Amino acid sequence: MSAFRIDGLQYANWSAGIFDQMGQGGLDAVHVTIAYHENFRETVLNIEKWNRWFERFPHRIVHGRTAADVRAAKKVGKTAIIFGLQTPAPIEDDIGLVEILHTLGIRFMQLTYNNQSLLATGCYEAEDPGLTRMGREVVEEMNRVGLVVDMSHSAERSTLEAIEHSTRPIAITHANTSYWHPARRNKSDDILRALAESGGMLGFSMYPHHLKGGSDCMLAEFCEMIARTTEIMGTTQLGIGSDLCQDQPDSIVEWMRVGRWTKKIDYGEGSAAAPGFPPQPDWFRDNRDFPGLAAGLRGVGFSKDETDGILGNNWLAFFDANFGPA
Amino acid sequence: MSAFRIDGLQYANWSAGIFDQMGQGGLDAVHVTIAYHENFRETVLNIEKWNRWFERFPHRIVHGRTAADVRAAKKVGKTAIIFGLQTPAPIEDDIGLVEILHTLGIRFMQLTYNNQSLLATGCYEAEDPGLTRMGREVVEEMNRVGLVVDMSHSAERSTLEAIEHSTRPIAITHANTSYWHPARRNKSDDILRALAESGGMLGFSMYPHHLKGGSDCMLAEFCEMIARTTEIMGTTQLGIGSDLCQDQPDSIVEWMRVGRWTKKIDYGEGSAAAPGFPPQPDWFRDNRDFPGLAAGLRGVGFSKDETDGILGNNWLAFFDANFGPA
Repeated sequence: MSAFRIDGLQYANWSAGIFDQMGQGGLDAVHVTIAYHENFRETVLNIEKWNRWFERFPHRIVHGRTAADVRAAKKVGKTAIIFGLQTPAPIEDDIGLVEILHTLGIRFMQLTYNNQSLLATGCYEAEDPGLTRMGREVVEEMNRVGLVVDMSHSAERSTLEAIEHSTRPIAITHANTSYWHPARRNKSDDILRALAESGGMLGFSMYPHHLKGGSDCMLAEFCEMIARTTEIMGTTQLGIGSDLCQDQPDSIVEWMRVGRWTKKIDYGEGSAAAPGFPPQPDWFRDNRDFPGLAAGLRGVGFSKDETDGILGNNWLAFFDANFGPA
Repeated sequence: MSAFRIDGLQYANWSAGIFDQMGQGGLDAVHVTIAYHENFRETVLNIEKWNRWFERFPHRIVHGRTAADVRAAKKVGKTAIIFGLQTPAPIEDDIGLVEILHTLGIRFMQLTYNNQSLLATGCYEAEDPGLTRMGREVVEEMNRVGLVVDMSHSAERSTLEAIEHSTRPIAITHANTSYWHPARRNKSDDILRALAESGGMLGFSMYPHHLKGGSDCMLAEFCEMIARTTEIMGTTQLGIGSDLCQDQPDSIVEWMRVGRWTKKIDYGEGSAAAPGFPPQPDWFRDNRDFPGLAAGLRGVGFSKDETDGILGNNWLAFFDANFGPA
């Protein structure tokens, strides 16, 4: 099998320069966040923005709706852009929008961001009652059309219930393990185990708040965490979800955390002393650093095939199985 | 004090005939539901519809924003129409819409309908984790501008937490007591007690699913329930919230229950065998029957003053205290 290179989550301040760097880094596909707290109409505006980019940069990027689109992109040296949503705000209160958004090319949707949604509970709420009545219905509808359930920002019980209730594998596109770094956004062994047993994917994040040691975390430490996670999850359901937010101003991380739900400032994983985006570790500053991850993984003992799996082939197999009707 | 007649909740299929019946029944004010699952823009369309009715029927109805508007309406024989929302869908995920909707004349907003909302939990969910992070912020903002928190359809813990967290009295505009009729929508003694201690109002409902015996419930039984409730709540925080849904087709009760959250049918308080609106008890079929309630209340021992309080003066005092900035 060819060695595909796929990033399971980015939210950059997109530009010609970044699209070029995707090419330089050998990225065949990137799952990009196209909306946080946007409602349906605002999400459509963001799709329109991507359509303009696809028109302007046809030599570099193409809209990816299927694994076949990723294979086709690789053949001609382009990067397939796969759309995803980090909150369910784009479906508003309307289950019918699940199918509409899938038709528009959305392939991942988080059931929650940090707070309670209409569907489930985010990891910053004090209580986590699990999937709501609407949440159960929406998971069924997502399963039907092939829109992947993403629980990266969700709370423990909600995540376990999503894995249980979903008849198709779910994804945690961008998070690490709490045994390694007990951040609120990282995942428990119980979740890792349930995720693995159900055929789900974990995308390891290089966002400093998810890393042990933050911005100073070393590549070898990150790769050792991946190696240790194979003891719980094996090697075929692991990928990368870098959570790269390249070139974004700090106002964007404030929007992610605060949206429109409070008149105060919520610092989320940051703090009043460090409210903005933290600096990236020096071994992963942009897409050009993607190839360097291979050496790191080989360095902790992964074989060539396993390394190719983690850096893209595992995501591709997941796309093959989960981006269309069951 | 004059004897005001106020209904704390109606959602009729509004018409010239119903507005005339409000006059015949002596109604000085009616809190009307203007939105269930409508988003902000759709709610504004509903306000526009009311603006047309105010233009067409100026001899009968007037928009009521304050208790003073109700007093002025009474003087000229009109009915003041007070706007309210049965779900927080109209504020979408945007705390800034609380003030905007208050400016547009909204005076009551339920934090939930039957399901989990972004703010709190409805009485049909299996779990009730109480107020969410956004729910606490929104209650504070409603307190600031003078938009009354209504917990008629909310679950137990959420209701108790709303009473506790709100710095101003809340309302349960349309529900009865569960000691009398243990429907999921009726309220526990704990809630009645906390509501009374905090200065809140309970509006007794004549919607058959909230009545012991349903459509066959007798006026005397209904009034005995009110009399017994004074043992917990006293007499000055009780009112009527008839929940009259006059002339509505059954498609409307389906919209109330199902909204856009499921592709199935949710029967709510009804059932597959009885999915529609139940018939009203023969002693309260429309606004013209409002005066008959006075005889019922006097019949179970209420004084003239107490009766006037329950049929309107208590709501008026509540409007005086709670429809503007604190």
